[in-house]
Amino acid sequence: MTTVPEPSAELLQRAAAVRLAAVDLGQTDDGQRAAALQAMADALDERAAAIVAANREDLERSAAEGLAPALMARLKLDATKLAGAIEGVRKVAALEDPLGRRQLHRELDQGLVLERITVPLGVVGVIFEARPDAVMQIASLAIRSGNGAILKGGSEARCTNEAVMEALKHGLSSSDVSADALTLLTTRQESLALLRLDGLVDLIIPRGSNELVRFIQDNTRIPVLGHADGICHLYVDAAADVAQALRVAIDSKTQYPAACNAIETLLVHEAIAPAFLAEAVPAFRDAGVTLRGDAASQALGVGAAASEEDWRTEYLDLVLAVRVVPDMDSAMEHIRRFGSRHTEAIVTGDAAVADRFLAAVDSSGVYHNCSTRFADGFRYGFGAEVGISTQTLPPRGPVGLEGLVTYRYRLRGDGHIAADFSSGARQFSHSDLPL
Amino acid sequence: MTTVPEPSAELLQRAAAVRLAAVDLGQTDDGQRAAALQAMADALDERAAAIVAANREDLERSAAEGLAPALMARLKLDATKLAGAIEGVRKVAALEDPLGRRQLHRELDQGLVLERITVPLGVVGVIFEARPDAVMQIASLAIRSGNGAILKGGSEARCTNEAVMEALKHGLSSSDVSADALTLLTTRQESLALLRLDGLVDLIIPRGSNELVRFIQDNTRIPVLGHADGICHLYVDAAADVAQALRVAIDSKTQYPAACNAIETLLVHEAIAPAFLAEAVPAFRDAGVTLRGDAASQALGVGAAASEEDWRTEYLDLVLAVRVVPDMDSAMEHIRRFGSRHTEAIVTGDAAVADRFLAAVDSSGVYHNCSTRFADGFRYGFGAEVGISTQTLPPRGPVGLEGLVTYRYRLRGDGHIAADFSSGARQFSHSDLPL
Repeated sequence: MTTVPEPSAELLQRAAAVRLAAVDLGQTDDGQRAAALQAMADALDERAAAIVAANREDLERSAAEGLAPALMARLKLDATKLAGAIEGVRKVAALEDPLGRRQLHRELDQGLVLERITVPLGVVGVIFEARPDAVMQIASLAIRSGNGAILKGGSEARCTNEAVMEALKHGLSSSDVSADALTLLTTRQESLALLRLDGLVDLIIPRGSNELVRFIQDNTRIPVLGHADGICHLYVDAAADVAQALRVAIDSKTQYPAACNAIETLLVHEAIAPAFLAEAVPAFRDAGVTLRGDAASQALGVGAAASEEDWRTEYLDLVLAVRVVPDMDSAMEHIRRFGSRHTEAIVTGDAAVADRFLAAVDSSGVYHNCSTRFADGFRYGFGAEVGISTQTLPPRGPVGLEGLVTYRYRLRGDGHIAADFSSGARQFSHSDLPL
Repeated sequence: MTTVPEPSAELLQRAAAVRLAAVDLGQTDDGQRAAALQAMADALDERAAAIVAANREDLERSAAEGLAPALMARLKLDATKLAGAIEGVRKVAALEDPLGRRQLHRELDQGLVLERITVPLGVVGVIFEARPDAVMQIASLAIRSGNGAILKGGSEARCTNEAVMEALKHGLSSSDVSADALTLLTTRQESLALLRLDGLVDLIIPRGSNELVRFIQDNTRIPVLGHADGICHLYVDAAADVAQALRVAIDSKTQYPAACNAIETLLVHEAIAPAFLAEAVPAFRDAGVTLRGDAASQALGVGAAASEEDWRTEYLDLVLAVRVVPDMDSAMEHIRRFGSRHTEAIVTGDAAVADRFLAAVDSSGVYHNCSTRFADGFRYGFGAEVGISTQTLPPRGPVGLEGLVTYRYRLRGDGHIAADFSSGARQFSHSDLPL
């Protein structure tokens, strides 16, 4: 087991500088933060050639080290991809300000008024893997929401990440936001020690494997916004339209199989299983998907057998487990037992059945007659996302800027004291005022 | 270090039963849950004599074991206190339903509509100390918000807790909510093993010492709603009205010194320190409060010296640390360094100064010209509270029913698939609909 080291004096100092910068950042207004993001985007534009060159260096070194082709593709940041990422920063600048929203406004007594206002979290720590565009995306979301950020990227992308971070800080230095609000960690020791920075870091966002997320959860007192497995299910009900069910199933599995919102298990009502599988088995074969089924679905054409382990597996690949169920309750029981509370869908023409599924299945996304692939911040209209959370507590599901803010209660009085209310000399009015 | 044992088969079975009951509970409507709480209250009324008798047994045993008088007072549940607690259950029944609220309603495309709806967390695990009225309060908050609850009380109160739980379950059995939704753990082994019930328990709420909260945070993957220290500050600004500042200071310290929202440190602007301390030193002495000050405040009459350790101490007693500061920035720096982000107040007649304090101090409560003792769910008008959270992420500050719910995204389509949007065949409309 990896042990988590104590933070070095140098790391503590850098984290304290981020925290201090974040205090000022938290008091900037919407325009100042939006302008800071534009300045970040401008600086990236100016330094685009240097960033692409740095990325080539990372690519050459990684190729020599034998990095897998899929990871090489993720690592690559050419001029076109960089331009897209810079456009993303400008889009985050244009998003609605998540700060300063009044969520509660209440008179407690004459002259004693309570408000609840959204405020930044403070400092977020983000640990991510190969993709260097993540630095731009996360830094822009953090600054837009008034938060400092400590970032740690994969070592394959170190030259790119450093070039990007330099540009971002250069951009900030020409804005009202201190360049100290962002910092990049470069060593593994530092990223481990980040887990010990409670008091300086308010939220850790791991973007990587399940193992990474679990390791972090087990080794820090800082709250972690993470997703564990995405074991998503599609249930084809007896009252489904076969053509619609097939279309949704194919999209949910194949549109991007490596995504956490792709389905891993198909549950089919026994009444529709013969008709549905007669079409689905060849269709999945044509789409390059290997099916693994229970005995009933094998009897209907599914070629390979699924073991209990299959119900628990996030394939992230063109493999799909299939099970025939006697009724919707069995489907829901299967989901309860093996699901990861990410996203589950039902295809049915019966509205009452759909309502029951949507009310009873406790996943962050419950869908009727559409693909699970819609579970995504951009598709939900959040503009950008820091990730998808499979935790039960909010923020849950796709997390946009809203997940990077908290709130604060402000109470203004005129010398009000609690003793007067305890003695009965005064009574609370608790009357809500306009927001 | 205490080790956390694996859950026994029996505990796993009981927890699974709570979870299953919670699934049904989550689908009850407002009226059914309110009626279940009334049935719980009725059953407590019927069994009041038996509960009080059970409490006498606990009191006698604890007296023989030499329990401290303060804890004896907390343990005591006579007919009057019980009647008050039952009244509390009925009040929770009358609170507005926190479930089924639509927080977001958006058309993503024609016929593809997204909603975000509040839903229960699932199952909460609550570990609390001596007060047996906590069982009634927590059980009613949990059921009202559609959650199952696993409770573990202090061993001093075991007879009372069991008698109360029996009544609550008896009440539920005559309602639409299964009695399995509540369970009481009785051994320390079980309460430790509760920390390992990830997947069955969604939130742990410890109500006890800081040590208990920290131990739990360090030994579970389940989210913990806890408060660490309540080191609250009152800053008396140069522009304060001395009489008002004194009134607020005395109330903030003495109205209930054992509460987490009582102040532990008084920060006084040097310009007002002579005038303020000339009145405050004798006033605190008369109120039985021992002051410990820095050199400047000692020169102005504070009797004892404060060490660095005092700034970090939650006295929970009639002791107050005092420090003279050259300006508000120094006061805010002190709060940043030593505070626990619970509640801080400023007394000043200068509205701009107050605004700056309320914007810059990052505690869950920031107050102007009123006592820190208002940091409380009842006083905020929440009707009841599960506790006060000093974490940064929501729920923060006093936590009412709202802290026991999460949300779920529901998406309804008509065969919509993601591929159509990737290919450009369809575009997202993202138009918000009425809530």
